[in-house]
Formats: sequence, structure tokens, C-alpha cells
Amino acid sequence: MLKLFGGSRTRASMPRWYMEEKSIDYELVELNLESKQHRNAEFLCINPFGKLPALIDDNVLLEDGSPLVLFESGAILLHLAERYSNDINTPAQRALTSQWLLFANATLSIALFVPSSREHEFPRLMEVLNGQLDPDRPLVGDQWGVADCAVEAHLGYLPIFFPEIDLSPYPVIQAVIERTRLRPAYQRAMGHA
Amino acid sequence: MLKLFGGSRTRASMPRWYMEEKSIDYELVELNLESKQHRNAEFLCINPFGKLPALIDDNVLLEDGSPLVLFESGAILLHLAERYSNDINTPAQRALTSQWLLFANATLSIALFVPSSREHEFPRLMEVLNGQLDPDRPLVGDQWGVADCAVEAHLGYLPIFFPEIDLSPYPVIQAVIERTRLRPAYQRAMGHA
Repeated sequence: MLKLFGGSRTRASMPRWYMEEKSIDYELVELNLESKQHRNAEFLCINPFGKLPALIDDNVLLEDGSPLVLFESGAILLHLAERYSNDINTPAQRALTSQWLLFANATLSIALFVPSSREHEFPRLMEVLNGQLDPDRPLVGDQWGVADCAVEAHLGYLPIFFPEIDLSPYPVIQAVIERTRLRPAYQRAMGHA
Repeated sequence: MLKLFGGSRTRASMPRWYMEEKSIDYELVELNLESKQHRNAEFLCINPFGKLPALIDDNVLLEDGSPLVLFESGAILLHLAERYSNDINTPAQRALTSQWLLFANATLSIALFVPSSREHEFPRLMEVLNGQLDPDRPLVGDQWGVADCAVEAHLGYLPIFFPEIDLSPYPVIQAVIERTRLRPAYQRAMGHA
């Protein structure tokens, strides 16, 4: 059994979207951030940092027999892909998948959320990414996978959290965002979490 | 053959430190950032984003027969650990290792480099991390590994890049930083890259 702990406007929407796409069964536990449920003693036993998302996977046991408890959306995505999908079939695919997960969660996030980077670093990243992406080809392997999920989820945040950013210089990115928004699994995940 | 592209004050020091610790043979190609060598056409063929570090691993071939080329320090670390160390022996260790890599490269980095986070988010992370770390026990498995490398490298940056941050409320973190600085492989990697 997979139990995902999430909440509004957290990165729980990424693993949720991925599990919806791959038809992976999970139970969603939504915490109320306004009433600080993510800082309750009960949740701090699951993730001492009190951050969402977190995942409990009863199918994977630690040496002491307790279930795997994971935090960090990128690590949760990677684990789901390793265990519950056919995304990763070779060492090269594993390495390139983690490359794009880290690119999305670290490099792209930092470029967006560090104000000084948003001006200079972010447009450069977007320009290169616009040339790297192809709406008809996944980033790794031959099917839509967890690398696409992480990058597209971050691109999907742009019009929501940064509506002032002009995306017209990046037509491929615009096309990717449009296609992403039309995916039923994306709509299910983003509508609630 | 492993070829690591790095340069002063880049995160190339992390994979370099790790390879020194694990006695993994590599060739270091140092680019001069001041003369913009990382933006030369030759390097942009290796990493189109023009960011360091990047790794070429001739031992791992893509479907088209070309060698694996990787960017993102966290993905490089994870790949080195998977292929050239005994750090990762179970699915749980793989998942927890990527959790700590993402924690270091994404969560901890964002908390440090986003000015508004440095005030509020960063002290909270440090307080919890101080309780999670144990200088005598690795973060994952039973030997010093790539999860320790990523977290300790970031902690090691603190006195260098943020000397104004008072670390005395976090004695375990202080002890970890002290021990890290004494490691010969750390000194070799940080002295040059």
C-alpha cells in the first residue's frame, strides 16, 4: 500500500500526477497547512522536517522491518518510477532520469525562486530548455515518464505562480504547457492537491 | 574512463570529493569560468545549459552507442554511487540516498540562497538536521556514502559562503563540519575545484 501525504499548493501534486498517469494505486492523506497539521507530532514522526509531500511504501521494508518512509518530491518520483513503472530500463535511463528530476527540483526551482536568478539565470535556462524539449518525444526512453512529469509540472507552475513572465519567446515550452494541461491525469492531480 | 568537467566554485567539488573518497579513477577537465569556457560551443555540446559539473562516462553507452553524458551534480553523484561504489544495496537504500541528495541540492540550497528563506526556513531546517545527523553514523547504510557527501558538502559551504551565520545553536552540525574538513579526500577536492 502506498500512502501519499500532501496538501494544497505543495509538491505532492507531482507524485500524485505521476501515479494517476501510471495507474498506481495510492491513498492520499491531505494535511491542512493553515492549521499546521504538517507540524503535528504525528506527521513529524513521518517527516521530521515537516514538509510535504511524504510517502509511506509498505511494499519496501527497511532492515528493521519498518516500511520505507520517504520525503522530497523528486526522490518520491524516482522511487515510484523504479518500483511501479517501466520508465527505467537501463543504467543510462536511470542516470538521465535523475538528471532531469534534479534539474527540475533544484536548478529550475532555484532559478525561479531566487529573485536575482529570475532575471538573468531563468531566461537562459528557458531558452536552452525550449531547444531541448520536443512535445512529441519524452525526455528519457520512449514513453512519457517521470522525467517529463517533473519538468512539465514545474513548467505548469509558471502561468499560475508567475503570470507576469512572458513565455512567448519559448514557443515549444508554451506548447508543452498547453498539452500538459489537457492531460486528464494532470487535471485530476492539480485540481485537488 | 570518467571525465569530470569542473571549475572553481562550482559543484564539481562534490563529485570530485566523492570519487577521491571512493578511489574512483577520473580525469578532471577544469574550465575557466572567467573566460567563459563553459559557454564555448565545445562544452555546450556536452551540457547545452553550460553549467558545471558535467560527466562523461565511457563505460555506459546510450542506445545509439554514444557514451553517457550527465549534468546536475546530484545526478552525477547518484550515478557514481550506483555504478562505482557499494553504497546502494537495496531499493530502500536507493530511495533514501536520492532523498538526501535532493534534500541537499534542492531543499537546503533553496533555503540558503533564497533571501527570504534564509531567515525563516533555513534555521528550522538546520535545527531538525542537527537532530537527524550523527557524526558517527552514515545517513544511509553502514558506511560513509554519497548521501553523506552531498549533505556534508553543503554544510561545508556554510562557513565559507555564509560566515555571518551563527552555527553555535547546531553543535552536531558544527561537529560534522569539523570532521568533514579533516578528511584528506575533502581537502584534495576542495583545494582545487
